[in-house]
Amino acid sequence: MKNPGVIEFWYEFASPYSYLAAARIERLAAERAIRLDWRPFLLGPIFQRRPHDPSPLQHPSPAQRRYRWRDLQRLCAAEGLALRLPSTYPRSGLLAARTALIAIDEGWGAEFTRAAYHANFAEDRDIAAAEVIGAVVAALGREAATVLERATAQANKVRLVARGEEAIRRGIFGAPSFLVGEEMFWGNDRLDQALAWAAAAPSLPPLG
Amino acid sequence: MKNPGVIEFWYEFASPYSYLAAARIERLAAERAIRLDWRPFLLGPIFQRRPHDPSPLQHPSPAQRRYRWRDLQRLCAAEGLALRLPSTYPRSGLLAARTALIAIDEGWGAEFTRAAYHANFAEDRDIAAAEVIGAVVAALGREAATVLERATAQANKVRLVARGEEAIRRGIFGAPSFLVGEEMFWGNDRLDQALAWAAAAPSLPPLG
Repeated sequence: MKNPGVIEFWYEFASPYSYLAAARIERLAAERAIRLDWRPFLLGPIFQRRPHDPSPLQHPSPAQRRYRWRDLQRLCAAEGLALRLPSTYPRSGLLAARTALIAIDEGWGAEFTRAAYHANFAEDRDIAAAEVIGAVVAALGREAATVLERATAQANKVRLVARGEEAIRRGIFGAPSFLVGEEMFWGNDRLDQALAWAAAAPSLPPLG
Repeated sequence: MKNPGVIEFWYEFASPYSYLAAARIERLAAERAIRLDWRPFLLGPIFQRRPHDPSPLQHPSPAQRRYRWRDLQRLCAAEGLALRLPSTYPRSGLLAARTALIAIDEGWGAEFTRAAYHANFAEDRDIAAAEVIGAVVAALGREAATVLERATAQANKVRLVARGEEAIRRGIFGAPSFLVGEEMFWGNDRLDQALAWAAAAPSLPPLG
């Protein structure tokens, strides 16, 4: 394992299970003294590369769609986390992810991430819209125009694309994903297991 | 909720996450004094009805396929459950499911279920073959020829088809699934939550 004691949190702002993970991860990592690396990225480009495996966000069966929101409702209720059925789903996480990169640079990435998820999944606001992300940024006491300008600068756009390439290279196919070195854990359900792995670095050779 | 204190365990013999659930559920249900209803069924006919959402068993991306077995390996290791990478995957669960219906009738359904999963996922034996299922049955002290004859009788085949229709009608789209009344929980990861629901029957109105 490359980085014991560090967990990378790969998250997509369109993903409601990432919302759950973002609400829990900082507290749980701190309890185990594990360093947390926030890694916003986009799933869309990954889904587009696999024509035989369409996005589970875009093409669930009706039964599966109904189930997902009920499952999220139960999980959020257990976590004391607000949830509203979004009027649009999935919403593009592009602008939120670009903005999160800037916020992380400046040391307020965790706050921005949770606030953007709250806007999307607790308040049913359109996080794809610049005015919504601007309002979220302003509510955190930041200069919205300046932040949005940095977020949409060419260099930052390229950075997010590179992040997506890295995700594919490292085998990521969904969100949230947690990486401990190159050991990958997929889904909010695996957060505790990933943290335990980061804390203890168990030995488990590849399955023969 | 229709049946407090009862959990229906819907499982597919091709499904490795059902293998995990089958290994845990009897003990966990007994701890909470919850009655357990074993419900073998087939996922194939359900997947065939949704052309836009192909089977996650059949069409994962290579990254997702690699991930799944690593995830299973970690979960089985934590549970102390043997796992071998199967040489054929997925294997048809048809004959095993037909046989399980007979075994459940006769009161040895739990034992047969665990033994058939063990053959498939711990021993890499072909549970689609009559000689393998026959050997599993014989190892449980039963008359293999008689059991297989009952399993493949027309009336029993029809019963399994009807079980699949019931699964679709009740919104099941994957395995394992747990039903508490009409409240559905999908995946081995939801077993504890489903049992807690069966024990306590919380009130959670539909998401608005």
